[in-house]
Amino acid sequence: MRPESNSPTSIVIFGASGDLTHRKLVPALYNLFQKNRMPQQFNIIGNARSPMSHEAFRAHMRTGAQTFSGDTFDSAKWDLFAPHLWYHAGDATKPDDMTLLQEFLAERESAQANRLYYLSVAPFLYPTIVQNLGTSQMARDDGGWRRIIIEKPFGIDLASAKTLNGIVHSVFDETQVYRIDHYLGKETAQNILFFRFANTIFEPIWNRNYVEDVQITVAETVDVGHRAGYYDKAGVLRDMFQNHLLQLLALVTMEPPASFNATALRNEKVKVLSAIRPIDIQGTVRGQYEGYRQAEEVAPNSQTPTYAALRLYIDNWRWQGIPFYMRSGKALTAKTSQIRIRFRRPPHLMFNLPEDGKAFAPNTLSICVQPDEGMHLSFEAKLPDSNSATRSVDMEFHYRDSFGKVAIPEAYERLLLDALLGDASLFTRSDEIEVLWGIIDPVLKGWETPDAPQIASYPRASWGPEAADALLAQDGHHWGQGCMHEDQQ
Amino acid sequence: MRPESNSPTSIVIFGASGDLTHRKLVPALYNLFQKNRMPQQFNIIGNARSPMSHEAFRAHMRTGAQTFSGDTFDSAKWDLFAPHLWYHAGDATKPDDMTLLQEFLAERESAQANRLYYLSVAPFLYPTIVQNLGTSQMARDDGGWRRIIIEKPFGIDLASAKTLNGIVHSVFDETQVYRIDHYLGKETAQNILFFRFANTIFEPIWNRNYVEDVQITVAETVDVGHRAGYYDKAGVLRDMFQNHLLQLLALVTMEPPASFNATALRNEKVKVLSAIRPIDIQGTVRGQYEGYRQAEEVAPNSQTPTYAALRLYIDNWRWQGIPFYMRSGKALTAKTSQIRIRFRRPPHLMFNLPEDGKAFAPNTLSICVQPDEGMHLSFEAKLPDSNSATRSVDMEFHYRDSFGKVAIPEAYERLLLDALLGDASLFTRSDEIEVLWGIIDPVLKGWETPDAPQIASYPRASWGPEAADALLAQDGHHWGQGCMHEDQQ
Repeated sequence: MRPESNSPTSIVIFGASGDLTHRKLVPALYNLFQKNRMPQQFNIIGNARSPMSHEAFRAHMRTGAQTFSGDTFDSAKWDLFAPHLWYHAGDATKPDDMTLLQEFLAERESAQANRLYYLSVAPFLYPTIVQNLGTSQMARDDGGWRRIIIEKPFGIDLASAKTLNGIVHSVFDETQVYRIDHYLGKETAQNILFFRFANTIFEPIWNRNYVEDVQITVAETVDVGHRAGYYDKAGVLRDMFQNHLLQLLALVTMEPPASFNATALRNEKVKVLSAIRPIDIQGTVRGQYEGYRQAEEVAPNSQTPTYAALRLYIDNWRWQGIPFYMRSGKALTAKTSQIRIRFRRPPHLMFNLPEDGKAFAPNTLSICVQPDEGMHLSFEAKLPDSNSATRSVDMEFHYRDSFGKVAIPEAYERLLLDALLGDASLFTRSDEIEVLWGIIDPVLKGWETPDAPQIASYPRASWGPEAADALLAQDGHHWGQGCMHEDQQ
Repeated sequence: MRPESNSPTSIVIFGASGDLTHRKLVPALYNLFQKNRMPQQFNIIGNARSPMSHEAFRAHMRTGAQTFSGDTFDSAKWDLFAPHLWYHAGDATKPDDMTLLQEFLAERESAQANRLYYLSVAPFLYPTIVQNLGTSQMARDDGGWRRIIIEKPFGIDLASAKTLNGIVHSVFDETQVYRIDHYLGKETAQNILFFRFANTIFEPIWNRNYVEDVQITVAETVDVGHRAGYYDKAGVLRDMFQNHLLQLLALVTMEPPASFNATALRNEKVKVLSAIRPIDIQGTVRGQYEGYRQAEEVAPNSQTPTYAALRLYIDNWRWQGIPFYMRSGKALTAKTSQIRIRFRRPPHLMFNLPEDGKAFAPNTLSICVQPDEGMHLSFEAKLPDSNSATRSVDMEFHYRDSFGKVAIPEAYERLLLDALLGDASLFTRSDEIEVLWGIIDPVLKGWETPDAPQIASYPRASWGPEAADALLAQDGHHWGQGCMHEDQQ
């Protein structure tokens, strides 16, 4: 999996003084280096406005790697890695500064050098920096390749995403662009595809004939904290649904691609996302945790939801009529990301009525993305020493049990390596990002109309507003505990 | 589940001085009594030739219950149970003695009394005792019901089973007859039906479209021991295949009955057993463990197999073309009863060739009947920190984990209760026993012909003769470890 090019590769991080760089990006690159997965020749150049020496940058990054690279930090290895790190001060939104950066890079590169740009700056700066890269002739593949990773959020609605795509495409070809959603770099998210398509026993029942409903939950216990200023403008739909939840939905519902490459995979994702029926505003719930409006930088009458639940349908052959329930929120009672597929009840009960009066529970398959990565399959077993009473029991698979010795890498590690390898499978394509916004936009707009469901307050450390339970109860369904055990629910 | 009759019930055990009575039958009846599942009025009458006082019989049975009834023995409860126990000496093959037994019973019964006879004697005595019961007017339902439980083996081949059925039916109606195979009383065996028909996710893949092959293994570590005299006349086909293995096969392969009653259930079993294609003698393996011929009471040139493996096919819509491999033997390396269903490989591998060169393993579902009752489902999961390498991992369900507090009862407990309740679901019907012999008979006869595979010797504590591996290798298959972990295999 090591990039094979003999050419030197420059990795340029814009916004290098930000949290992401020393918490995630450099630790991930350092881990790749430790695993001998970095190109043979490479430089990592941090760029930000404030002046800093190379040595100060290296020292700062060393602290980050020590803290965030897992248990594997090794001083000797770091000393081999650190000389690849450079810092170049400058304002990337200014053409002159960009020209200076280009010169700084050129001094360290051969004619064949490859470059990976990483936009880790405030989103409103994306257009200017991208345009500057174009103006400074830094985007053209000439000899070596040029690629750009763009952090989320990519736009704040469909119109702005289209505009941004237009600007990006005026400078870069789509094949050069890597829109990142780190959720797709998580092992468990990737494993959804292996689970579905490297096994034969699940695919036959993975459709409307056997599935009753599907639930996707991404719950956080933290509140908006110091991100309140950003968050109050974004809200949970933009922050979580447009990217993470819909990406998980796509992985669970897509048709099998013919091959595991970026084009085939993303074609299938776009196909299924395009089949999502426009969401009925009456099938949505929005909530705000108690005390949100008192947070600093939050408007006192803020209508920004910190919680949402949506019911949606996919109008295709496989999923027609099956409800998909999605929920996400802050200040909830548990931190969990999970997908729960509930199957239909047996068509005929040959057994006598259970002695205890309880009907059989339907089978459920829970895919646990975090924190306890794994799979739970619930099924009915006969209660021993009874005639025909049954109980729901669980078969469980936990990553940590089977792969205890293999550390599960951070999502960014995989994604940075893929970008270096030129594999865009786990990045969001331009048409895909527009389809994603196309799903969310009407809900954002619908919530501004008079007949929208009112925003409901919910207590901290709860499972959100009661209206979310009522939403499922309308269909005779209920939120399931899925990956969590009773005592967590 | 308590028998509701207000009439007194007499349970008459013929062969009461034998092992089965104090090891299994009386401990089971005592456990039912403890659980308040015995009829309100009952007597248990032991019969055998040697004289013994009621008190001596009770003392002997108490030892049995203490030793074999599990951890639940309770002296106070036993003292309430013991007065129900009686011993009546007599030779049940002699009409005069049977008449005396009838008088002994009548003294303790009202006109409405029910009777359950249990034939726990040497099989060659079955016909005479059954006929004596008839002659003594002890078989007719007059006021109370009359039922008879007949221990295995029921016949030694098809002809003798038919003859025995004829004799039994000359005295009892088939609805009165309970042919016992204690394997069907095991919780895990019963659970096969619940697993298949109380869940929706397994039935759709339970057929030739998704299944590659099915293996049934009943392995013992013990050798023939003190049963050598009986065993050398019977052999493994009569001892294990005709009953246990084929019963497990029927539970795994039968169509769903419309209801869980004796008629519907046994109709479906007979239906699928009748669909078994006559076994090709070239698809069989027979073996003898080293040293068997040196055992006492074994002929020095004995051709009796202590191990057999068979390949068979079921010619019906669901199973056509799928091989079923069955094996059983003594002096093997592990004690295990298990069913292993191997599914087909995915029809198309969208993933790149695995980096480690290993192809994906097919999914397998292992139903573990004993000793570690449960289910194992193996599936492929992505190896963390790899691009597309996978590993087989297990989801496991163990009875002891989910039902730790519920003691799994002995098979005889359930079966005796069912007989008292008049539920024959878990007993073998006359047509069923003949179908079972009809499957085994041709193999027994085929092994006496010149072109039969030779009997192969195998080392003790092995998995049997190598020819059994070769049998599966012909089809590109292999015996799987199923419920056992690597270190047991």
